[in-house]
Amino acid sequence: MDASTLQLIILPAGIIAVLFALYLARDVLARDTGTPEMQAVAGMIFEGAVAFIKRQYTTIFLLATVGAIGVFGLISVFETQEVAETDIFGPALGFRTAVAFFVGALCSMASGIIGMYISVKANVRTASAARRSLVEAVQVAMRGGAVSGFLVVALSLLGVYGIFAAFGGLNEETVKDAPFLIVGFGFGASFVALFAQLGGGIYTKAADVGSDLVGKVEKGIPEDDPRNAGVIADLVGDNVGDCAGRGADLFESTAAENIGAMILGVAAYTIALNAGWPDPEAWIFFPLVVRAFGLLATIVAIFFIRGKETEDPMSMLNRGYWVTTLLSVVGMGITTYVMMQTNGGIGNAFGLPTWVYFFGAGIVGLATSIAFVYITQFYTAGSYRPVREIAEASKTGPATNIISGTAVGFETTLVTAVTIAIALFASFWLGNEAGLIAEDGRNVGGIFGTAVATMGMLMTTAYILAMDTFGPITDNAGGIAEFSRAEAGAREITDRLDAVGNTTKALTKGYAIASAALAAFLLFSAYIDKVNLIQARRIANDIPGAQLLESVNLANVNVFIAALIAAMLVFFFSSLAIRAVGKTAQAIIVEVRRQFREMPGIMDYTQRPDYARVVDITTKAALREMVAPGLVAVATPIIVGVLLGAEAVAGMLMVGTITGVMLATVLNNSGGAWDNAKKYIESGNLKDENGNVLGKGSDAHAAAVVGDTVGDPFKDTAGPSLHVLVKLLATITLVMAPLFIR
Amino acid sequence: MDASTLQLIILPAGIIAVLFALYLARDVLARDTGTPEMQAVAGMIFEGAVAFIKRQYTTIFLLATVGAIGVFGLISVFETQEVAETDIFGPALGFRTAVAFFVGALCSMASGIIGMYISVKANVRTASAARRSLVEAVQVAMRGGAVSGFLVVALSLLGVYGIFAAFGGLNEETVKDAPFLIVGFGFGASFVALFAQLGGGIYTKAADVGSDLVGKVEKGIPEDDPRNAGVIADLVGDNVGDCAGRGADLFESTAAENIGAMILGVAAYTIALNAGWPDPEAWIFFPLVVRAFGLLATIVAIFFIRGKETEDPMSMLNRGYWVTTLLSVVGMGITTYVMMQTNGGIGNAFGLPTWVYFFGAGIVGLATSIAFVYITQFYTAGSYRPVREIAEASKTGPATNIISGTAVGFETTLVTAVTIAIALFASFWLGNEAGLIAEDGRNVGGIFGTAVATMGMLMTTAYILAMDTFGPITDNAGGIAEFSRAEAGAREITDRLDAVGNTTKALTKGYAIASAALAAFLLFSAYIDKVNLIQARRIANDIPGAQLLESVNLANVNVFIAALIAAMLVFFFSSLAIRAVGKTAQAIIVEVRRQFREMPGIMDYTQRPDYARVVDITTKAALREMVAPGLVAVATPIIVGVLLGAEAVAGMLMVGTITGVMLATVLNNSGGAWDNAKKYIESGNLKDENGNVLGKGSDAHAAAVVGDTVGDPFKDTAGPSLHVLVKLLATITLVMAPLFIR
Repeated sequence: MDASTLQLIILPAGIIAVLFALYLARDVLARDTGTPEMQAVAGMIFEGAVAFIKRQYTTIFLLATVGAIGVFGLISVFETQEVAETDIFGPALGFRTAVAFFVGALCSMASGIIGMYISVKANVRTASAARRSLVEAVQVAMRGGAVSGFLVVALSLLGVYGIFAAFGGLNEETVKDAPFLIVGFGFGASFVALFAQLGGGIYTKAADVGSDLVGKVEKGIPEDDPRNAGVIADLVGDNVGDCAGRGADLFESTAAENIGAMILGVAAYTIALNAGWPDPEAWIFFPLVVRAFGLLATIVAIFFIRGKETEDPMSMLNRGYWVTTLLSVVGMGITTYVMMQTNGGIGNAFGLPTWVYFFGAGIVGLATSIAFVYITQFYTAGSYRPVREIAEASKTGPATNIISGTAVGFETTLVTAVTIAIALFASFWLGNEAGLIAEDGRNVGGIFGTAVATMGMLMTTAYILAMDTFGPITDNAGGIAEFSRAEAGAREITDRLDAVGNTTKALTKGYAIASAALAAFLLFSAYIDKVNLIQARRIANDIPGAQLLESVNLANVNVFIAALIAAMLVFFFSSLAIRAVGKTAQAIIVEVRRQFREMPGIMDYTQRPDYARVVDITTKAALREMVAPGLVAVATPIIVGVLLGAEAVAGMLMVGTITGVMLATVLNNSGGAWDNAKKYIESGNLKDENGNVLGKGSDAHAAAVVGDTVGDPFKDTAGPSLHVLVKLLATITLVMAPLFIR
Repeated sequence: MDASTLQLIILPAGIIAVLFALYLARDVLARDTGTPEMQAVAGMIFEGAVAFIKRQYTTIFLLATVGAIGVFGLISVFETQEVAETDIFGPALGFRTAVAFFVGALCSMASGIIGMYISVKANVRTASAARRSLVEAVQVAMRGGAVSGFLVVALSLLGVYGIFAAFGGLNEETVKDAPFLIVGFGFGASFVALFAQLGGGIYTKAADVGSDLVGKVEKGIPEDDPRNAGVIADLVGDNVGDCAGRGADLFESTAAENIGAMILGVAAYTIALNAGWPDPEAWIFFPLVVRAFGLLATIVAIFFIRGKETEDPMSMLNRGYWVTTLLSVVGMGITTYVMMQTNGGIGNAFGLPTWVYFFGAGIVGLATSIAFVYITQFYTAGSYRPVREIAEASKTGPATNIISGTAVGFETTLVTAVTIAIALFASFWLGNEAGLIAEDGRNVGGIFGTAVATMGMLMTTAYILAMDTFGPITDNAGGIAEFSRAEAGAREITDRLDAVGNTTKALTKGYAIASAALAAFLLFSAYIDKVNLIQARRIANDIPGAQLLESVNLANVNVFIAALIAAMLVFFFSSLAIRAVGKTAQAIIVEVRRQFREMPGIMDYTQRPDYARVVDITTKAALREMVAPGLVAVATPIIVGVLLGAEAVAGMLMVGTITGVMLATVLNNSGGAWDNAKKYIESGNLKDENGNVLGKGSDAHAAAVVGDTVGDPFKDTAGPSLHVLVKLLATITLVMAPLFIR
C-alpha cells in the first residue's frame, strides 16, 4: 500500500466514528429510564442542563461571532502582502482565517452540545441499569461517554480535513501553503474551549460549593438531598464542567495539534520533494492518518468493556484502554511505515530506516499517556501515600489538612515535569537521528519527532474522553439514585461507579495537561516556522529591518519581560477563575438560604424547593463571571505581542506554557487528593492512636471536608481552565503572528 | 572631585557603619532590662536562641567547609586552562574561589550571629521601655534592628571589597579580571543564606504552629501563655527566622548584586579605556561606592526616628525610610556624576550627558523600592480591600477563607510582575540610550542600566533590614510582656509595636523579592558575559566546537527542558520546605502534649513546663529537615548544567527566577493577608448582617485562624526560602559555569 492510498482512510474513519457515535447514542437512548421518581429528577437535570447549554452556547456563539469578525478585521488590515507567509493576504486571508475560526468554533460547539445532550440522557439510564447489573450500568455510562469521545475527535478530524481540503490542501501546488491557512480553526476551537471550560467550571463548582455550604454544613442534610434547592444545579454542574468543558478542551488539543504538526510537516515535505521520496505530501497528511487509526482503535475497544458482576469496574475500563493503546501501536506502526518511505534513506544512530525512529517517537507518546494515567492514580487515589498523608494530617484540623494537601500538590510537579522532559528529550532525540536534513543543513527531524510523540499520545483521546464523561454520568446516576431514594443495591452500585468516575476524571486532567505540554513545544515550533516564512519573504523583498527569528533569546529584555508577564498571567487568570467561583457560590448561598427561610415546609418534605430558580441564578452568574478571565486570556498575548514583538511573544508562549502546566498540575492534583482524602476517611480507613475509626462526623472528617471544598475550584475550575489557556496562547499567537512583526 | 578620590569612601564608609552598629549595640545593651520576671523569660529566650544558633551555625559551618572543599575540587579539576575566563585556572583558581566562598560564608554567618545576639538582648529592653514610653520602645527596637541592618550591609561591602582587593582589584593590570575571581564570595553567601533561611524558617513556623495547635486549639489557653511548653521555642523562632534568616537573605542580595554589577562593569571599563575617558575603573567600583552612600544615608536616618507619644509608630519608621531614600537620591546623583564622566560624550535620547541616564536608572530602582513598600501594604494591611475580602469570606467558614486567600495571593502577582517589568524596561531603556557602545558595536548600556537600578534599590537595604528586625524584637517584647504578666499600659504599647512589626516584616519580603527579580537579570547577564569570555578564549585557541553563547534560545529543546525543570524545582523545593514544617511541628505537638499529660500541675501554674526540651527538639528537627531541600537546591542546577550544557542552565536560571519570584509573591502575600485578616477580625472590624461584631471566639474568627495557620509556613518558610533559591541559582551557575561548557 502506498501513502496516497492510506490517506484515503481519513474521511471514512471520521465518518464511521460519527456513525458509531450515533449508534451508541441510539443504544443508550433505547434503554429503560427507571422509576417515575428517577425520571422526574432526571427530567429536572435535563431541563437545567438544556437551559444552561442554551444560554451558554448562545453567549459563546455571540462571542465567537465577534471573535470571527475581529479576526477578519485584524488579519485583513494588518496581514498585508509585506507580512504574509503565503501568496494569500489581506481580506482574502482574513476571510479564510475567519471562516476557519468560525468552523472550528462551530464544530467544537456541536460536539459539546451533542455530548452533553447524551450525557444528561445517559445518567438516568445508568441509574436504572444499576438496579439490575453492575456490568450493564458500566456499559451504559461508558457508551454515553463514548458519544462525546467519538464526536469530539471525529469532528475535529473532519473539520481540520475539510477546511484543509477547501483551502487547497488536496492540490499538489498548494498543499504546502494550506496548513498555514487553517490555523484559524485551532484558534476558533481554543476560543470556544476557553469559554466552555470557564463557564462550565465556574458553574459546576459554584453550585457544588454553594449548595454544600448551606445544605451539608448549615442544615446538616446529606449531599444530593431533595430538600436542598441547589441540588439540581449541582447535578447539572457535573455535566457542564466535566463533560462539555473537558470535551472542548480535548477538541482543541486534537485540532490545534493536528494543525501544528501539519505545519511542521511542511518542512519534511520540502525535504521529501527535493529528495524525490515517494508521496511527499504524506508528511503533511501524517497527523490526520494517525488520528484516524486512533479512532478506529477506540471503536474496537468499546466492545471490550465487559466483565463479571464482581469485577472492579475500573479494571473493565482499563481493559478497553489497553486495547486502544495496543491497537494504536499497530496503527502507528502501519502509518509510519507506509507514509515515511525515504527510498532507502537511513537514520544516524543504529542505521535504521527513517520511519523506525518516528515509530519510536510515537511509542514514546503512547507511553507518556500510560505514565500519566498511573502517576495521577498514585497521587490522587486513596490507596497510596499522598492521600493517606493528607488524611492523617486531618487529625490535627483543617489547617494541617490544607498545608499537607498543598505540599502534595506542589510535590506532584516533580514527576510531571520529569516525565514530560524525558518524553520530549527521547522523541526529539529519535527524530533528530532520523535523517531529515533540510537544504540549509537544518535537522528538522527533532521537532517532528516531538510532533509524532504528541500524535501518539493523542491517539487514545476518544477513549480517554469517554472515560472522562463516564465520570459525570455516574456521578449524576448516584445523585438520581439518592434523590429518588432508590433501593440500596442500586445505590451501592452507583457509589462504586462514582468512585471509579472520580479516578477517570482525574486521569483525564493528567492526560490533558501532559498533551498540552508536549503540544506547546510543537505549536511553538510551528509559530517560529510561520514567522520565519514571513521574514524570508520580507528579506526576499528587501524590506528593511527584516530578519529571521533564529532564536528566542531569554537574555533579550523584551523576551524576559514577556516571560514574566506570562508567568503572572497564569496566576492572575487562576485568581480570576477561583474568585468567580466564590462570587457565584455566594449568589447560590443567598438563594438557597432564602428558600429554606421563606419556605419552612421544605425541611419536612411538604414543600418542594424552587430548583429552577437556583439553576437560573447559577447560569446567569457563571456566564457573567466567565467574561473577565476570558478577555484577560485573549487580550494579554495580543497586547504583549504588539508592544514587544514576535520574539517576545514566543518567550511568553513558552514560559506561559511551562508555568501553566506546573500550576495546573498543582491545582488538579491537590484538589483530587483532598477529594479522595475525604473519601478515604468516609470509607473508615482512618484510625486514631487507639485504633478507633475516625469516620463521617469526626473532627478529622470535618477537616477533610474543608480541604475537599478548597480543592473544588482548584481542580475543576482553575486547573482545567489553565489547560485551555496554555493552548489558547499557542493558537492565538499562531494566528496573530503578522501583527507582531516589525 | 574625581572618581578615584570618591572610591576612597568605600572602606571608611564600611568601617563607620560597623562602628556605628557597635555604638547602637552598646546603646541598646546599656538600657534597663525590666522586672525580674521579664529578665527570667528573656533569659530563657536568650538561652534557647543561643542553643539554636550554636547548633545551626555549627552545622552550617560544617556544610560550608564541605562546600568550600567541593568548590575547590570541582574548579581545580574542571576549570582547566581551556575553560578559564582569565589567566588564572586550575588549583590556583580553585583555591581563590574556595577562599572567596569561605570568606563570604563567614561574613554572612558573623553578621547573622551578632545581629541575632543583639536582637535577643533588645527584646526585653524594648518590653521594659514600653512601661515608660512608646517612643523609647520604638527607638530601642529599631536600634537593635539596625545593628543587624548595618552589619549585614557593611560586612558584605567590606567582604567584597577586601576579596576584590586581595585578588588584584586595586591593580590597574588585573582590575578587569578580579570581578570574575570573587564570584565565590556570592556563592558562599548564598550557600549560608539557603541553610540559615531554611533552618530558621522551619524552626520558627514549626514552633508557632506546633505550640498553637496544642495550646490555643486543644487547651484553649492564650498565645504566649507560660503554661505552654512550646512558648519559649515560639519566641526563639521569631528571631531565628525573621532576623537571622532575612539578614542572610539580604546579605546575599547585596553581595551577589555587587559582584554581578562589577562583572557587567568590566564591559563599560573596556569601553572607557578605549575611549580614553577619565578613570575607567570607576565603572567597576561604581556599585561599591553607591552601597557606601546607602550606608551613610541610613546612619543619618536612624537619628530621625523620633516623634510624639501619640504618633503612629509606623509613621516614625516611615520618616526614617524617606530620609534614607532622599539622601540615597543625592548619593546616587553624586556617584553617577563623578564616576561616569565621558569627556563630553552624550547619550542618544534628549542628548544628555551619559551619567544622567544612569542617574535616572538609579532613581527607577529607588522608586521600585518605594512601590513595593506600598504594594505590600495594600495587599496585606487590614485597611484595604484584599484583607477585608478574606475576613468577609471567613463568615462562611475555613474553606471559603482559604479559597479567598489563595485568590488574593494569586492576584498579587499582577502588580508585582507589572512593576518589575516597568522597572526593567525603564532602566534598560535609559541605559540603552546612554551611549555605552562596545568595540563590536554592542550596546552594553541597557544591561548596565538594570544593574544601576538594582544598586539604587539596594541603597536602602540597611534601613529596610532594621525595620525587618524591628519585627521579631517587638514580637518578642510582646511575648515577654504577656509571659511576665506586665502592666496593661506596657502590653498596649507592645501590641501596637507588634502590629507595626508585622507590616515591616511583610514589606521586607516584598522588597527582597523585587530585588531578587531585578538582580536575576543582572546576574544572568554576568553569567553570559563569563561564558562568552571563556568561549572567546577557546575560539582564540582554536578549540573545536567552541562558539559564543549569543542567545539563550528557548526553542532549543535542552533549554526548554531545563526551563521546565526550573519551574518544577520552585514548586518541589517549596513542597519540601512546607512539609518540613509539618514534620517538625508534629514533633513539637507530641512533646507539648506529653508535658501537659505527664505534668498535671502545669495548668494551675504549680509546675513549670520543660521549655528547654521543646527548644532542643525543635532545633534538632529543624536542622535535620533543612538538609533535603538544601541539597535539592544546590544539586539540581549542577546536574542540569552538566547534562544539558551552559545554554540550558541559563534558561533554567531565568525561568527559575521568574517562577520563583511569582510563587514567592503568592506565598508571602497570601500568608500576610491571612494573618492580617485574623487580626482584622480580632480587632472587631468584622460585622454580621445585623451589625453585630464577629470578634474573637466567633466561628468567623476560628475560620480566620485556620487561614493564618496555613499561611505560616507559606510566608515564613517557603516564600523567603524561595528568595534565596532564586539567588542561589544565579551564584551557583556563575561559579560553576566552566563545568557546563563543552
